[in-house]
Amino acid sequence: MVTASPPTLGVVGGGQLGRMLAEAAAPLGVELVVVDPTPDCPASPVVRDQIVGDFDDPDAVRELADRADALTFEIELADPDLLDAVAEEYDVPVHPDPDTLRTIQDKLVQKRALRERGIPVPDFRPVEDRDDLLDAGEAFGYPMMLKARRGGYDGRGNLPVESPDEADDALAEMSGELMVEEFVPFERELSVIAAKGDGEVATFPVGENVHEDEILRETVVPARTSERVRERAEAVARDVLSALSGRGVYGIELFEREDGAISVNEIAPRPHNSGHYTIEGALTSQFEQHVRGVLGYPLGATDLRCPVAMSNVLGDVAEPRPADCSGFEAVLAARGASFHWYGKREVRPLRKMGHVTLVGDSLASESPTGGSSAESDAEPSVSDLLAEVRSLTDSLTFR
Amino acid sequence: MVTASPPTLGVVGGGQLGRMLAEAAAPLGVELVVVDPTPDCPASPVVRDQIVGDFDDPDAVRELADRADALTFEIELADPDLLDAVAEEYDVPVHPDPDTLRTIQDKLVQKRALRERGIPVPDFRPVEDRDDLLDAGEAFGYPMMLKARRGGYDGRGNLPVESPDEADDALAEMSGELMVEEFVPFERELSVIAAKGDGEVATFPVGENVHEDEILRETVVPARTSERVRERAEAVARDVLSALSGRGVYGIELFEREDGAISVNEIAPRPHNSGHYTIEGALTSQFEQHVRGVLGYPLGATDLRCPVAMSNVLGDVAEPRPADCSGFEAVLAARGASFHWYGKREVRPLRKMGHVTLVGDSLASESPTGGSSAESDAEPSVSDLLAEVRSLTDSLTFR
Repeated sequence: MVTASPPTLGVVGGGQLGRMLAEAAAPLGVELVVVDPTPDCPASPVVRDQIVGDFDDPDAVRELADRADALTFEIELADPDLLDAVAEEYDVPVHPDPDTLRTIQDKLVQKRALRERGIPVPDFRPVEDRDDLLDAGEAFGYPMMLKARRGGYDGRGNLPVESPDEADDALAEMSGELMVEEFVPFERELSVIAAKGDGEVATFPVGENVHEDEILRETVVPARTSERVRERAEAVARDVLSALSGRGVYGIELFEREDGAISVNEIAPRPHNSGHYTIEGALTSQFEQHVRGVLGYPLGATDLRCPVAMSNVLGDVAEPRPADCSGFEAVLAARGASFHWYGKREVRPLRKMGHVTLVGDSLASESPTGGSSAESDAEPSVSDLLAEVRSLTDSLTFR
Repeated sequence: MVTASPPTLGVVGGGQLGRMLAEAAAPLGVELVVVDPTPDCPASPVVRDQIVGDFDDPDAVRELADRADALTFEIELADPDLLDAVAEEYDVPVHPDPDTLRTIQDKLVQKRALRERGIPVPDFRPVEDRDDLLDAGEAFGYPMMLKARRGGYDGRGNLPVESPDEADDALAEMSGELMVEEFVPFERELSVIAAKGDGEVATFPVGENVHEDEILRETVVPARTSERVRERAEAVARDVLSALSGRGVYGIELFEREDGAISVNEIAPRPHNSGHYTIEGALTSQFEQHVRGVLGYPLGATDLRCPVAMSNVLGDVAEPRPADCSGFEAVLAARGASFHWYGKREVRPLRKMGHVTLVGDSLASESPTGGSSAESDAEPSVSDLLAEVRSLTDSLTFR
């Protein structure tokens, strides 16, 4: 490889993921141009240029392709057909493959693709009417999870159905094409950030996620589960990767069932909130890994550097308003804590405004990969980190 | 502290130090605007805006002050009088204090200021003519180091004088105001990155520097010296801080003399090449520390995360030409290595084009600060890292 000047990566989306991609790309000399509809989006101050336009605006995405050496996206609202078209028109590679994005965008198609390959998923069915929903109830039992097939995030587009009596109301509340899934009684929510490179794959250590109201609140690594479960989760993640095409990073959310079995919950074809811990916690961050993967560079080492906990900072308002941040001195003063402020101008109820990462001391008593320590060793230190990062996050307010 | 929107930091200079400042500022939500005379300077793609203008261009620096919540500089060519004037005109703080910059810019004034406070420095004298130089030779012995008082860097502006016979040639070769220093027979070159915050100071672990042709090639941390010397170096660094005014990061280059005594070589009122290791190697990077200091935020923890070695990648050409980089795959593929490509469009002989950092495994057998391990523990691992980072850097070429 000889590169006359550093490459430009075109990114559909310029939210916090785009911002953190830019932060990770800069040391590699890689420049970013992003397309985002919000003027002065979070990525804007740290990228070469923002093209203001919708994620599926043909003119904006064409301009992006014209300026870029490679294309990617940081949001599932990117348009796979448009990406395919501009990739051909401008002879520029797109990663992950728009066809993978197409598969993942429709949760029903996503689950079918996984099940066809023998990857464990919760049982699911399409729902077109009341009868479909009630039939599913008989098969799966209650509660079940009614899901919009497209466009949901942070719990939006998911609705639990507790009994047949709720079927009508549930269907009335949801719009668009629907599916229903059995409720998985899980012990823990886990996730694996996994990457496809040029003829290689790599997985980061298994993270344990804490959700509240279906919004990710915290991730701790190593996950407080058994070595066997971690190995199983990693194996499932590798199977998932083999079902997807195109290079880059994927966020794979998993359920650890009560019997220790693993089911895939959802896949994101991009860096994922549950992988933010990698910035300070791993030898390579998920964002740098995505840049490497998309550009066909060698993937980086995914070893954990230390136990780590990440906590989201959510908007603490009832209505949208201009964002004020207060109380971050405590986070800055805490040893091992890092504050990430996404620069969003407007705070909204439960909007992700930033996150705090807390690293522990070195993995002295653990293996270099951090994934193979005995549960008894890892648990106290990770739980302590979680308690501390929660307390730090509580001191921060976005109003 | 309540901040309605993230602050903007105005920086005089947009070279690699400005670029890495921007990379470190982004997670904190802090935006940068830089003044630099080179269109599309290294910082340009990762900052809000570059104002194209000389470092001492009044219009450019006024525009910077008008847009910034605080001002700093990443190059000694900033103009302290202009900074003082715009700080008053726009009521915006400047850190470090322009008076500190004024003191440091003139190496003679710098050394006098240090000596007045009892800080150990090599013996020195002003040189106005041949007689001054020959008198110094009788006092200091030969070789001596003839230095331009202003504007030198990377060995430019320094000329060894080996004997009285060389006096005429040496004076003919140098221009501007001059000084001469005794030659210090040193065991090692060390440096300490030190920061002044709002009522607090912090020092990073002592680094050991390897120079070649007076250009920094590598830094390894912990320095391969005794605990006593490290403590002495840190104490001298704290004394130096007390002699300087204004918040921010200072790079303090030191000689470890053959008897283990410490002398101050030079001070930079900004992040320093020998502190690049902190990006991956310390809990807080020198760049984030500078942003914190300048803005009056709490300083970050300076603990070393692991043994670390940093190696500069220099231009390998005889004449300036558009830069081509080759061979960085080996660096990207190496576990624990990070490549920093500054994005300079033109390569010049020995120009700093990037650097490689290599982190070792955790400080298991060492103290959390990394500075207090026994020599016998630290030495082999740091020396191995140095050999490996050299070999990785050799695989990289900028032509």
